[in-house]
Amino acid sequence: ILAFISQASRCSTNEVPIVRNIRELPQNDYGRPGLSHTTVAGSLVHGFKEVEVWLQTFAPGSGTPIHRHSCEEVFVVLKGSGTLYLASNSHSKYPGTPQEFPMFANSTVHVPVNDVHQVRNTNSGEDLQVLVIISRPPVKVFTYDDWSMPHTAARLKFPYYWDERCYETLSEKDEL
Amino acid sequence: ILAFISQASRCSTNEVPIVRNIRELPQNDYGRPGLSHTTVAGSLVHGFKEVEVWLQTFAPGSGTPIHRHSCEEVFVVLKGSGTLYLASNSHSKYPGTPQEFPMFANSTVHVPVNDVHQVRNTNSGEDLQVLVIISRPPVKVFTYDDWSMPHTAARLKFPYYWDERCYETLSEKDEL
Ligand SMILES: [Zn+2]
Ligand SMILES: [Zn+2]
Repeated sequence: ILAFISQASRCSTNEVPIVRNIRELPQNDYGRPGLSHTTVAGSLVHGFKEVEVWLQTFAPGSGTPIHRHSCEEVFVVLKGSGTLYLASNSHSKYPGTPQEFPMFANSTVHVPVNDVHQVRNTNSGEDLQVLVIISRPPVKVFTYDDWSMPHTAARLKFPYYWDERCYETLSEKDEL
Repeated sequence: ILAFISQASRCSTNEVPIVRNIRELPQNDYGRPGLSHTTVAGSLVHGFKEVEVWLQTFAPGSGTPIHRHSCEEVFVVLKGSGTLYLASNSHSKYPGTPQEFPMFANSTVHVPVNDVHQVRNTNSGEDLQVLVIISRPPVKVFTYDDWSMPHTAARLKFPYYWDERCYETLSEKDEL
């Protein structure tokens, strides 16, 4: 019972404090080595409907899956550096070899809607820390094993890693 | 002619670089003493449709007008501290005395949709630097002279300060 209440309270859309200490928010790697993810302002977690904000740190060598989504996505690089790999949406059957864009501290990076992309910390000496802003949460992500995987074979990952727990909790509530 | 081209290029929705150095983006006080505003990812400036991101620095004593808007708004405090003044939307005829919420480095703050609010750097010793995320840009802002001004007397400021130049440029283009 207590576990349920505690879990539910993290997913409530009620009583989200106006000011929150980001360092005291839950952070986790969600099973992805090298990742530290914190949902700063979330749809399922906090009840935002139009924007979602994440704080993510990638250890050297780590990164996101190769993926695409139909929402807007903006990165603000707070610390470190890395690479955005971006396959422009050229309407072929698979993403193809991506372009590489260097990301650096105090840069902003955006991903065109539906373009297949990956962010990686390609700097062996330093963590890459970014704020990520997405529109129309919760995010619906299609993941690819590699850049030659057909778009039709990409797998929908929904709810996404950090949305899973709240999604289940809210679904349970709906069933009550 | 050159002036027009230069101005238009800052407001184009085409050819926005994927990676941009935030320190090289235009920054200005837009006539508001103590403010430094940079549109990191903008609707009118860069063609984003669903989110907009600003970097703002407030010198000690400076702040935003008292205002409201129907979009979602999330602050991430990067440096310094200050105060959010927030009049909850209690459906009275004017905002009334606001609640005060301290903002501090590494905190996140959100403004409930349509609640009248003001952010001020109330720390006399240090700049307050925030990233601001809003939904459904460009922002439509209603401003108040004080907390007892009737909602019906609030003035619409549209386009907002940093959107004015691009709004005019795009309007000129529309007329061509
Ligand atoms: Zn993405
Ligand atoms: Zn506001």
